[in-house]
Amino acid sequence: MRAILMYGAGEVRIENVPDPRIEEPTDAIIRVVRASICGSDLWPYNDLPTSETGRPMGHEAIGIVEDVGAEVRNIEPGDLVVMPFAFSDGTCAFCREGLHTACVHGGFFDGYGLSAAQAEAVRVPYADGTLYTIPAGEDDALLPSLLTLSDVMGTGHHAAVVANVAPGHRVAVVGDGAVGLCGVIAAKRLGAEQILIMGRHADRIALAREFGATDVVSERGGEAVERVRELTGGHGAHSVLECVGTADAMLTSIEIARPGGAVGRVGVPHYDTIPGAAQTFFKNVIVGGGPAPARAYIEELLTDILDGTIEPGRVFDRTVDLDGVPDGYRAMDEREALKVMVKP
Amino acid sequence: MRAILMYGAGEVRIENVPDPRIEEPTDAIIRVVRASICGSDLWPYNDLPTSETGRPMGHEAIGIVEDVGAEVRNIEPGDLVVMPFAFSDGTCAFCREGLHTACVHGGFFDGYGLSAAQAEAVRVPYADGTLYTIPAGEDDALLPSLLTLSDVMGTGHHAAVVANVAPGHRVAVVGDGAVGLCGVIAAKRLGAEQILIMGRHADRIALAREFGATDVVSERGGEAVERVRELTGGHGAHSVLECVGTADAMLTSIEIARPGGAVGRVGVPHYDTIPGAAQTFFKNVIVGGGPAPARAYIEELLTDILDGTIEPGRVFDRTVDLDGVPDGYRAMDEREALKVMVKP
Repeated sequence: MRAILMYGAGEVRIENVPDPRIEEPTDAIIRVVRASICGSDLWPYNDLPTSETGRPMGHEAIGIVEDVGAEVRNIEPGDLVVMPFAFSDGTCAFCREGLHTACVHGGFFDGYGLSAAQAEAVRVPYADGTLYTIPAGEDDALLPSLLTLSDVMGTGHHAAVVANVAPGHRVAVVGDGAVGLCGVIAAKRLGAEQILIMGRHADRIALAREFGATDVVSERGGEAVERVRELTGGHGAHSVLECVGTADAMLTSIEIARPGGAVGRVGVPHYDTIPGAAQTFFKNVIVGGGPAPARAYIEELLTDILDGTIEPGRVFDRTVDLDGVPDGYRAMDEREALKVMVKP
Repeated sequence: MRAILMYGAGEVRIENVPDPRIEEPTDAIIRVVRASICGSDLWPYNDLPTSETGRPMGHEAIGIVEDVGAEVRNIEPGDLVVMPFAFSDGTCAFCREGLHTACVHGGFFDGYGLSAAQAEAVRVPYADGTLYTIPAGEDDALLPSLLTLSDVMGTGHHAAVVANVAPGHRVAVVGDGAVGLCGVIAAKRLGAEQILIMGRHADRIALAREFGATDVVSERGGEAVERVRELTGGHGAHSVLECVGTADAMLTSIEIARPGGAVGRVGVPHYDTIPGAAQTFFKNVIVGGGPAPARAYIEELLTDILDGTIEPGRVFDRTVDLDGVPDGYRAMDEREALKVMVKP
């Protein structure tokens, strides 16, 4: 089959690789209907050391089940399924608590030697625990929103949950990428009274407003902090969704949090320590977050997608086939595209 | 009146100072019945720059109200009251939410130019919001436990609340000082199934066991982390109470937290950044805490003290008069005393 491999920073190639096959009796093979490029794929796109083996890429997909192992019980060939970015057994203590990204048998898709989603097909470990069968057919109009359940919508929702978004809360979203925009959707769903989006890309801001953002903060650093305080009655936001992953974004997030508030961080941290140890302490601000248990959130979010309440699929502003993936990386990296969908 | 002032590291003096008097119509003056030396007083005892003016010390007290300002409504002369370590107006948005340590008119006792509790009397701002009248007389046997409501018991409870202690949880308490021991009491009250105390002072560990600790970890660093994992079924503690305030204690707290768990930190941070940004992220561990809203917790904890369910006053192992305070600091600093009560 054809698949995307990355051989170093900026080195994205389409190659012929062996078809994935059932290796464990709990596996399933899915034919990829739609995959996508994740903001987190841009980190290796910028800093992956050169290798000769190549790293399979892609961890967000929806697909049709083609084959299942002998022990798979709940997934059948022909099912349309969401493949969350982490696989999980569905039965361990962490999965039962809804933290599938801490599954004792779990892990992340892509990486050297693993199966990945920017390809014609993927091998999915622990298919019963990992995959979620969608009770709907292959409806082209719905596919983009269904695809966001594999990562970006679940991740925005996780940031909002960890940041304790609740009815009446003032919420700030740091970052106007696809995760931040899904954070806006999540904050509105959870009843936020005010939603500030921090960013400066006109098209993304416009989409944020359509998703429910009430205020835009385009300043940066200290000026942004001042502006958020002005807009929030002087004290900052009850809930801050950190959707970037840099030290600067974390510091801003902490500075704009209201005393007693919470920062939910979902940007993969590119910093070693969390800044502002004294400030978070004296403000009693909670800092939480991490890889979203996207699997746990599918059921709740799917309902709102199927009834049209939310349309997170609107974050995709470009669709490519496998041949178009290298240029898709470039376009996202240059902020020319917000998020790229892949139709293998 | 006589009061304690600190003039630099190790320079604790008893002096004659003007009696405190009503300055604002919302003030009250209380005669100090019992005060105490706080673990946090040891930080200036070790590093306060030398000054000529002297810093009044002490922020934990119970007392009898002697005088009130014209606008005080709920507190009367003769009342036996708890004075929490922070004053608060009781009416602002933060006070109404139970976060009195973020009160817009609030602040901390002691510090240069302020009234403080290691003295014969204290001026208390916002008496109606700050003070809590105890529905009991001056019962010598109860006074130590009532005194802990001003700080140390409320602080241990705050660590447990922020760390999401709940029935069935495995809890680790980092630090066997008075706050840590009150954290053990709080964890037991909130239904913890297992309570690990991390420390190595035999007498404190013995008291921790009487308070409800089920396991003792006397190792340090990496060995301590290993030991906690062994004792908690391999995954660490759901709730970690960080009751020290050093970078090492924070790192240990993060390392022993179970995925999806929480660290409640109440040790005043003597570190600039929170370590382990990647580890907390990939484990989805929450870090929270700060100055306890002791005022908010009095009612709940007082009930258990009055009916004998908890006896946090047992953390006091020495009582001194004002003349004995300098030696009380020394004894606590040298870990000869656990916590010193002051009977002016």
